[in-house]
Amino acid sequence: MKLWQKENTATSEQIERFTVGRDREMDLYLAPFDVLGNLAHARMLESIGLLGSEELGLLSEELRVIYREIQEGRFQIEDGVEDVHSQVELMLTRKLGDVGKKIHSGRSRNDQVLVDLKLFTRARLWQVAEATRRVFDRLITRSEQHKDDLLPGYTHLQIAMPSSFGLWFGAYAEALADDMLTLQTAFRLANRNPLGSGAGYGSSFPLNRTLTTELLGFEGMHVNVVYAQMSRGKTEQTALTALAAVAATLSRMAMDICLYNSQNFGFLTLPDALTTGSSIMPHKKNPDVAELLRAKSNRLKALPMEVTLVMSNLPSGYHRDMQILKEVLMPAFDEILDCLAITDFMLEQLQVKTNLLDDAKYDLLFSVERVNELVLQGVPFREAYRIVGKEIGEGTYQAPRTLQHTHEGSIGNLGNEQIVQQMDAALQGFGMERVQTAIAQLLA
Amino acid sequence: MKLWQKENTATSEQIERFTVGRDREMDLYLAPFDVLGNLAHARMLESIGLLGSEELGLLSEELRVIYREIQEGRFQIEDGVEDVHSQVELMLTRKLGDVGKKIHSGRSRNDQVLVDLKLFTRARLWQVAEATRRVFDRLITRSEQHKDDLLPGYTHLQIAMPSSFGLWFGAYAEALADDMLTLQTAFRLANRNPLGSGAGYGSSFPLNRTLTTELLGFEGMHVNVVYAQMSRGKTEQTALTALAAVAATLSRMAMDICLYNSQNFGFLTLPDALTTGSSIMPHKKNPDVAELLRAKSNRLKALPMEVTLVMSNLPSGYHRDMQILKEVLMPAFDEILDCLAITDFMLEQLQVKTNLLDDAKYDLLFSVERVNELVLQGVPFREAYRIVGKEIGEGTYQAPRTLQHTHEGSIGNLGNEQIVQQMDAALQGFGMERVQTAIAQLLA
Amino acid sequence: MKLWQKENTATSEQIERFTVGRDREMDLYLAPFDVLGNLAHARMLESIGLLGSEELGLLSEELRVIYREIQEGRFQIEDGVEDVHSQVELMLTRKLGDVGKKIHSGRSRNDQVLVDLKLFTRARLWQVAEATRRVFDRLITRSEQHKDDLLPGYTHLQIAMPSSFGLWFGAYAEALADDMLTLQTAFRLANRNPLGSGAGYGSSFPLNRTLTTELLGFEGMHVNVVYAQMSRGKTEQTALTALAAVAATLSRMAMDICLYNSQNFGFLTLPDALTTGSSIMPHKKNPDVAELLRAKSNRLKALPMEVTLVMSNLPSGYHRDMQILKEVLMPAFDEILDCLAITDFMLEQLQVKTNLLDDAKYDLLFSVERVNELVLQGVPFREAYRIVGKEIGEGTYQAPRTLQHTHEGSIGNLGNEQIVQQMDAALQGFGMERVQTAIAQLLA
Amino acid sequence: MKLWQKENTATSEQIERFTVGRDREMDLYLAPFDVLGNLAHARMLESIGLLGSEELGLLSEELRVIYREIQEGRFQIEDGVEDVHSQVELMLTRKLGDVGKKIHSGRSRNDQVLVDLKLFTRARLWQVAEATRRVFDRLITRSEQHKDDLLPGYTHLQIAMPSSFGLWFGAYAEALADDMLTLQTAFRLANRNPLGSGAGYGSSFPLNRTLTTELLGFEGMHVNVVYAQMSRGKTEQTALTALAAVAATLSRMAMDICLYNSQNFGFLTLPDALTTGSSIMPHKKNPDVAELLRAKSNRLKALPMEVTLVMSNLPSGYHRDMQILKEVLMPAFDEILDCLAITDFMLEQLQVKTNLLDDAKYDLLFSVERVNELVLQGVPFREAYRIVGKEIGEGTYQAPRTLQHTHEGSIGNLGNEQIVQQMDAALQGFGMERVQTAIAQLLA
Repeated sequence: MKLWQKENTATSEQIERFTVGRDREMDLYLAPFDVLGNLAHARMLESIGLLGSEELGLLSEELRVIYREIQEGRFQIEDGVEDVHSQVELMLTRKLGDVGKKIHSGRSRNDQVLVDLKLFTRARLWQVAEATRRVFDRLITRSEQHKDDLLPGYTHLQIAMPSSFGLWFGAYAEALADDMLTLQTAFRLANRNPLGSGAGYGSSFPLNRTLTTELLGFEGMHVNVVYAQMSRGKTEQTALTALAAVAATLSRMAMDICLYNSQNFGFLTLPDALTTGSSIMPHKKNPDVAELLRAKSNRLKALPMEVTLVMSNLPSGYHRDMQILKEVLMPAFDEILDCLAITDFMLEQLQVKTNLLDDAKYDLLFSVERVNELVLQGVPFREAYRIVGKEIGEGTYQAPRTLQHTHEGSIGNLGNEQIVQQMDAALQGFGMERVQTAIAQLLA
Repeated sequence: MKLWQKENTATSEQIERFTVGRDREMDLYLAPFDVLGNLAHARMLESIGLLGSEELGLLSEELRVIYREIQEGRFQIEDGVEDVHSQVELMLTRKLGDVGKKIHSGRSRNDQVLVDLKLFTRARLWQVAEATRRVFDRLITRSEQHKDDLLPGYTHLQIAMPSSFGLWFGAYAEALADDMLTLQTAFRLANRNPLGSGAGYGSSFPLNRTLTTELLGFEGMHVNVVYAQMSRGKTEQTALTALAAVAATLSRMAMDICLYNSQNFGFLTLPDALTTGSSIMPHKKNPDVAELLRAKSNRLKALPMEVTLVMSNLPSGYHRDMQILKEVLMPAFDEILDCLAITDFMLEQLQVKTNLLDDAKYDLLFSVERVNELVLQGVPFREAYRIVGKEIGEGTYQAPRTLQHTHEGSIGNLGNEQIVQQMDAALQGFGMERVQTAIAQLLA
Repeated sequence: MKLWQKENTATSEQIERFTVGRDREMDLYLAPFDVLGNLAHARMLESIGLLGSEELGLLSEELRVIYREIQEGRFQIEDGVEDVHSQVELMLTRKLGDVGKKIHSGRSRNDQVLVDLKLFTRARLWQVAEATRRVFDRLITRSEQHKDDLLPGYTHLQIAMPSSFGLWFGAYAEALADDMLTLQTAFRLANRNPLGSGAGYGSSFPLNRTLTTELLGFEGMHVNVVYAQMSRGKTEQTALTALAAVAATLSRMAMDICLYNSQNFGFLTLPDALTTGSSIMPHKKNPDVAELLRAKSNRLKALPMEVTLVMSNLPSGYHRDMQILKEVLMPAFDEILDCLAITDFMLEQLQVKTNLLDDAKYDLLFSVERVNELVLQGVPFREAYRIVGKEIGEGTYQAPRTLQHTHEGSIGNLGNEQIVQQMDAALQGFGMERVQTAIAQLLA
Repeated sequence: MKLWQKENTATSEQIERFTVGRDREMDLYLAPFDVLGNLAHARMLESIGLLGSEELGLLSEELRVIYREIQEGRFQIEDGVEDVHSQVELMLTRKLGDVGKKIHSGRSRNDQVLVDLKLFTRARLWQVAEATRRVFDRLITRSEQHKDDLLPGYTHLQIAMPSSFGLWFGAYAEALADDMLTLQTAFRLANRNPLGSGAGYGSSFPLNRTLTTELLGFEGMHVNVVYAQMSRGKTEQTALTALAAVAATLSRMAMDICLYNSQNFGFLTLPDALTTGSSIMPHKKNPDVAELLRAKSNRLKALPMEVTLVMSNLPSGYHRDMQILKEVLMPAFDEILDCLAITDFMLEQLQVKTNLLDDAKYDLLFSVERVNELVLQGVPFREAYRIVGKEIGEGTYQAPRTLQHTHEGSIGNLGNEQIVQQMDAALQGFGMERVQTAIAQLLA
């Protein structure tokens, strides 16, 4: 590369590159889902007489062959073939001749992209849900393990009141349980059948959309064909918003970890696998992995805005702009799954420092306890507050150092089983069993 | 104001202004909810013996008096009083002396803010849901009314295939039904009880959090006290994301309306109440209201990012930064409710042009119909496509102008009843009845 | 307010409110600039014979009266008057009859709004530049004052190498010098004359746009009338981006202050005026002001995105959407000026802890010094690094605790005078003198 | 890929992948700049006696060899080598033994990354400036070519006043001239020398930072070493903001093109190379390239927010988070350069429809002319406005259809030469000559 080279004006090759972009790469993500869509569409065509039952048999068999190729990593989009849909059609036609072509009846390219995207997004959101669940389980385990290990609690970054690692791990677990509700909504919006909407205005073929809805295990249908098209953008937005919610939880936890790993806090130790040294400072244990987790998560939080910017003020009806959304959506799933796997590992490996509150610096954590002690002895709150303030000022304050927090969700009563129930209920709400049954039948 | 005046350095008054900000104004939104929180907290205190039953009676009676004052618009935060919580406490103490002070037991300011915000957000999200439902109903009505009024359908802003006003109105109705799911999630995250979390680290008082959860009609509890505090930011983010989803639907509809109102489309007419003229061009009918609807909705779409930016990379524990979120959240509800009311009015008033497709310019809309006609006569699709392309090129093409779209969600079979069912189910999922019953009992 | 009240459909009053919005409030910001625009336009009209010289005299005199009213806070937009432009015209007409009306010749409302916004933005950006300069001066002063007060330097939040308060204050000063370049660009884009562009398509009047450009002290003109209109949005975006750049510097400094104020760092002390206590913890000194500074600055960073969202994908030509940008732009100036004033006060008041590095915890800061010591004794770098690592591991490491950093910009050679030169040059680049001279002449 | 496969917990390979990310790919962008930085650093080391003059000769010669390899595309980062800096050092050491190692003296990895990023960003911003200039020239050419081809001018998407293709092309040219100022600021912030800042706290070596500043052709230096490190993030932010400004101009132009290409406007024709057909509608000419230009540009507008989100609320000092910014910044340059090249081609190829205003639909465009006609005949403006309104209402209005717009920037007097002067001045402000001279000398 010359440093200051001049770019010439666009050639046809450049236009080709500009138009195709990373589309072929993105389309590989869609391959298995394109086959599923084809299987369902073919069966529906047969049901309305546009395909013979023998033709259906041939097509289904061949589609399952392609599906296995995809699973085994042998599928590719050949040079000169525009996209995954064309590639699948080409493979069918090579094997089955005109029968292969028939599968395009009553369907447009937009239709195919839409249904593939829905199936892809649904599957990936479920993967994210499962990975989130694994991190959740890890957090609950660590919370129980360290329920008696006290930790200074801060407000305003000021030493405030006693907390515990039990509370700290458990808090992030409950955060993920709430994030699961957002994932569930995204999943449900992805779990709607757009097939049959054509280019956004339907078709004069007597399509049976209820049938494809059932075959593909969708919870329901995007009924109105104009809306089915308009769901493009909204599906991506909602999915990325859900990933951003999970990412927000991870990035905040990563910030805590980086801070707690600082010598000025010193609340936890990261294993060597998760730290790096410095090229000039021999004593450093830098939490690079936690920092990258924070950065990658923070970056994920920007993605919903990318979709918003691409879609804003576009009139209704399809525009090619929407193609770009694939490049925003698809790698985001890989990124969040990486982040979740790394988080799980980090949570497994990090070591908690014990007896942190023995340090006199943290005596002030117990001032509220001291106030409450006086209150329970009958001193009015405002007076007790004044007395303890005076004790602190005059250096006569002594930290009680005993804690009797018993209410739900407090140090002495973490309530993790309730949190687990919330998580279970949220996951249940996906209705994933029906999806898995339908897909299994389609592939059988 | 001098144009280039110099600002002096900050005075104590300026710091006061900087710190308080618009907080007193924002706190007025919270007033009724603060009373509800107090009612529930008092009853709980009595149940664990920290308040006598007579004291509870006095406090409850007085709180209901304050509630009525708020409803009648007579409540205000007095000069020198810091916030709504202090104002309510002051009013109780004026009337009841020391009994009034007792209500602060086992609770911190953070606790109160949190529960007020949850109750406020829950109530306002329900208002938004109801207003959204009204717009939805209007759209369904207009869709049915105009199911036979054809409209050109576009892709890439190119004339594509026949659509109808029935489809167009119905599409936005279904969009709102999907948005209702996002609203529901936000509602459910707001419908969790944080009361009892203190400053984020719980309390040594034996609080009964299950009781306040029931009294306030919450669906459940933010169990972990550290997480209860951490839900600040997430609650606002999720609520604003839901408003942004509705706003995105409104802004897209507004864009269509502005475009369709252009002389170059001419698909609809706006009443004088919704247009303005020009100071120099006597012929203009500018769709200012639709444009402002678009702009305000687009601006609402930025608000989740404001929350993200304020919260990003803050370590766990309360920070004063969160106070600013009130200024982002609270006016947003007013804005979206205004937008929804205006949309409803606009949808009621706009007039649809009929017989649009008689214009020869739109003949090409029927080219797919012509292709399908040939296909149904036995011509293979690719061949039929070629023939029709040739007819168009040679000027021999004749638009069939008859449509037989019968499948679900198509021009001839809008499926609005299914869409209404989706909306009903989404609204049902809020579980609002339980909330209303609980609040009514608390105020009884 | 009823909690669950139903909103009725829009009334004409509601449409009025929706359309006008906060426009009258925003327009007050524009009042002095509207008068300036009128003064220049009148003089130009006279120069091309569309106004008699006596008429010009009357109008100019009256406009200066109005200008004084504005400066003295006596100006208001009367009930029933649509905007500031109408109000000024009304006041002229009341006094001067038909002569007052003549001032609208060769101009449209859009024209007026555009030129007012440019003049407003230019003036406010200069105010921000001056306030930024004051904070800069404060930082340089404190940097010089504390050039010998060492501070631990961190990377990855890990103790790294010795730094100093001299470096720390100076770093933020230099950041502001760079931000001044971004402010300068925004200023220059605001310093262009749009007057004469009419509704965006020019006028058949023989306007002399060069004359109004000179009269109003503009650096140049938005030549192309279509572009002059299109600059709407871009002007706001660029101005808000500049404010966001300053805000990013402030928020980062505020984060440092909050962290350094934590007991776990303890690097500085904030005066009571800048901290608050806790309602339940008698020992707290919460840095609320710094936290609000951080939050408000972070929120300002979202504003360019609001403009982007409102403007995205709008076709060329004026749309009413742009009115909303006033509500984004105008209060942002107040907010940043508040933030800068508070920052100045905080920087003046905060006290620096001295002898921080005497704490043995910070011995490791000097490990690089120890390595370099060995290198200068002839030991190869990699070997020296290994030796010091070993010393640290075995507990034999002794911090050298002498620093001889002499190069430009290092602890021993802060280079503040160079930084001041950069700042001076950046401010010079605004070309504000010419502006001030022109405005003074116009008002003379 | 299995559809619902479970991810296992992180392995060391996964951590490696997570940590390295796309860094090696990104580092290839930096290779030539790393060599330049090394050349300058070596010469400086020699000047302060830390390198012999013969050693300098050997190092410089070898570095130029590597530079040629990079230019010829033969350079790569070998497996197991961490980054581009290590690769270059490795190559030097292989050839020169211990002399190769000496180049790391007085420098840290952070130092190297910083200076490479500055040089990279500076070079790429210049490329963008040049490409922008080419599009600008094209726009001016087309503006002159079509200065007499009238076009309907719209406000509120309503037919407003006569415009011309001369104005339309010229407007976007002037927009780019303004964007060039934003690019210039970004360039100037990138054109500062951070070398010598070490890990952000300087060095005890007596580095001559003024010398490296001159050798690398920097306009100046980031003086304060803490700020030099803190400029990370700000440099990327400012560069991406400048790209976003250009992108905003391109996306708006693309929106106009998509709209004007619609049959309902029909103002221009795109060549076949820039349109695509439909798989089911034989008559379509979809402006896919313009749509992708719009979408890619809109997506670029989100990138400054990604940087903001990664950097927000990070305390001062280096954090690994900043590594992620490379992935945001570097591909963005490729994207905008692609967009500019495509825009240039599209502007060259698109054909303008002539005599558009002969269509009676556009008669109303001339209503202002008619009003002005009456005004020049002595009728007061308000009265003239009323009369023309009445003519239009009663159908007696006749469009004058003659235009005499003569003022600067109007249809009859485009002022393109002034706009070219603005562009020339903006480009001149980069001070690129000095940069090119310095780099040439360094490589000589």
